[in-house]
Amino acid sequence: MNPMELLSRLAREETTKIVLLVLDGVGDLRTAEQPRTALEAATTPHLDALAHDGALGRLVPVLPGVTPGSGPGHLGLFGYDPAEPRFDIGRGVLEALGLGLEFGPEVLTARGNFATADADGLLTDRRAGRPPTADTRQLTARLNEAIGDVDGVAVELAPGESHRFVLLLRGDDLRAELADTDPQATGEPPLTVAAQVPEAAATAERVAAVVERIHRQIADEPRCNRVLLRGFSKLPDLPQLGDLYRLRCGAFAGYPLYRGVASACGMQVFECGKQLDEVVAAVRPHWSDLDYCFLHIKQTDAAGEDGDLDAKVAALEAVDHHLPALLDLRPDVLAVTGDHSTPVPMRAHSWHPIPLLLHGRSVFVDDTDAWDERQAVRGHLGDLRSSELMGMLLAHAGRLAKYGA
Amino acid sequence: MNPMELLSRLAREETTKIVLLVLDGVGDLRTAEQPRTALEAATTPHLDALAHDGALGRLVPVLPGVTPGSGPGHLGLFGYDPAEPRFDIGRGVLEALGLGLEFGPEVLTARGNFATADADGLLTDRRAGRPPTADTRQLTARLNEAIGDVDGVAVELAPGESHRFVLLLRGDDLRAELADTDPQATGEPPLTVAAQVPEAAATAERVAAVVERIHRQIADEPRCNRVLLRGFSKLPDLPQLGDLYRLRCGAFAGYPLYRGVASACGMQVFECGKQLDEVVAAVRPHWSDLDYCFLHIKQTDAAGEDGDLDAKVAALEAVDHHLPALLDLRPDVLAVTGDHSTPVPMRAHSWHPIPLLLHGRSVFVDDTDAWDERQAVRGHLGDLRSSELMGMLLAHAGRLAKYGA
Repeated sequence: MNPMELLSRLAREETTKIVLLVLDGVGDLRTAEQPRTALEAATTPHLDALAHDGALGRLVPVLPGVTPGSGPGHLGLFGYDPAEPRFDIGRGVLEALGLGLEFGPEVLTARGNFATADADGLLTDRRAGRPPTADTRQLTARLNEAIGDVDGVAVELAPGESHRFVLLLRGDDLRAELADTDPQATGEPPLTVAAQVPEAAATAERVAAVVERIHRQIADEPRCNRVLLRGFSKLPDLPQLGDLYRLRCGAFAGYPLYRGVASACGMQVFECGKQLDEVVAAVRPHWSDLDYCFLHIKQTDAAGEDGDLDAKVAALEAVDHHLPALLDLRPDVLAVTGDHSTPVPMRAHSWHPIPLLLHGRSVFVDDTDAWDERQAVRGHLGDLRSSELMGMLLAHAGRLAKYGA
Repeated sequence: MNPMELLSRLAREETTKIVLLVLDGVGDLRTAEQPRTALEAATTPHLDALAHDGALGRLVPVLPGVTPGSGPGHLGLFGYDPAEPRFDIGRGVLEALGLGLEFGPEVLTARGNFATADADGLLTDRRAGRPPTADTRQLTARLNEAIGDVDGVAVELAPGESHRFVLLLRGDDLRAELADTDPQATGEPPLTVAAQVPEAAATAERVAAVVERIHRQIADEPRCNRVLLRGFSKLPDLPQLGDLYRLRCGAFAGYPLYRGVASACGMQVFECGKQLDEVVAAVRPHWSDLDYCFLHIKQTDAAGEDGDLDAKVAALEAVDHHLPALLDLRPDVLAVTGDHSTPVPMRAHSWHPIPLLLHGRSVFVDDTDAWDERQAVRGHLGDLRSSELMGMLLAHAGRLAKYGA
């Protein structure tokens, strides 16, 4: 029995409430140049008090050394083993979720670029001179109206920023095993839509007809006269958290991507502001109807990506400042952690273990008294895979029956 | 997707260089009688400086409690899960690799003893009175010339020390599922070659014919008049490191066994002396052509097997003394660890976790300042399986793409 099946079998209803507060990319590095991590540098009296009264540990997102994107990072936190292919969220899907689009596992998605080709059909600019977003909105609206349906495939282009869009195709038996049409170079024509497995041959033909129709419509555009498609994928048909663990789950995130991933897992999603006080304000009216609340804060990751330690410290201090509002809800189990590390010196996601803070009635009160990478190493929770966190949350909430007699 | 597949999918080329320095059997025990381990007792300023500037952790070779031989110990370090049957290196193969023989996965190998039987064919000495190695060399040379080929099976006996040899059989469709012919007792005849699965019945007959031919040739020898065979096996067809991880790998070891295991994994192998300065001298001319260098030092294990703490301390101090020559090569990632522990009080390999030292640009600089068993417990790398080290080395060398979007 795999871990998810076992937990699901043991899960039982309870009145307890679980909060998972994710500070995106919170983990960081100590190096010769950066002798303190953001968590070490930040003044966070409320988080430190939780550490004092609770326990620390660390999460390894996927496998030692493997750096996750936002999709696998969050799926792990929600209890899915992100290395399992059936839980893979493709790039087209993630882009669509990031735009806040709603769609089911039957929809074929792809990331799109508008591009420029010359009179011979050879690409001169793979990003069409980075057009204003407003132009892309107009163009996609025009295309949606003009095209509609191609041989039983309903076509929708959802505008992104600048030259970017997402293509959504709805039709029977569409397969996702299609190669990118972006040749990743200028001076060549866009690639033909090609099947990566024989079973996708019919889909490739249908998608090629869609692309041809789009190209006919934009042939006279001065710049946006071609489309390049990447990351064909469909939403995985994920087992839903409510069914798995008998939990009513809510997701509160200021960015659509995280709401989208949570929604794919079966969480009810709620838009909210981007600071913790705004997130908590969104939680409050739904508190009595939910068993498990996922709260997402983005600023820590953004600061890491920017290589800005001060901004990361400030983001942490802002979270700490607003933490009492969250504690006022009196969650039975509160976990604070990240989906991955985004070390300031690396300006990117990384594989480094993420500090985990757990607070609740059955938590072993260990000797830690501040939530940071150094103390997390010696916390009572030890090192866990992210996908093991769900079992720990359920257990500490009294929501797992004994296994065997 | 298993971990090796996932890492392989993410691996990308880079210009960074990885060094894995294996001090065989380096881990040790603290006991009432031996209050300091060899690493604690040794004066190793260069290793301590690396620990200060890098991070520590521990490797568990196979599973908690499982003591590996040299084969599984090293396969783990190279990223293969040694518990997977497809990665099993049999005893015949390991003995052949230890003699420096080169052969492919199609060759059937077995460890052999010359033995003495009386006129009734009953064994009187399973080691033939431990003949001089020179005699065994002469005898195997004579046999190789006399026998050559038996029913389409090319026969080769490679002499080992004293009564030992390795039998190599080359022919079509040879199976390795054969039982040992050594009855492990005197007063009995050698056992007949027997198949362990029905599919190996034909091979058993052919190998029995080979044994009969050998016995006819040595019937008149006063002592070496029988052969006993154990550990029938073939080289596993291991996925090659270069293909898996886009690495050019080199192995530098003073003993053929370690070169042999590395070669089976697809490393280019280089003979060298047995001290670290000699090993590094062998690396230097190939440095620019390799991405991953495995360096093997044996003396720590030998001292452990001898129960000689002073010798183990001296071996460590010799490594430390020569470490600057290795650091002069400026590897981007340097790992120092062992394939297993060989605790002096046990005089044998053991299952105890092995201290791991990692140094490189993206390594979390933790609070450790000496490389030993005690500090390794609280290092930032935590506890890993040996087979998880490869992912960490690749990650720290910037050689793994992000997983998912």
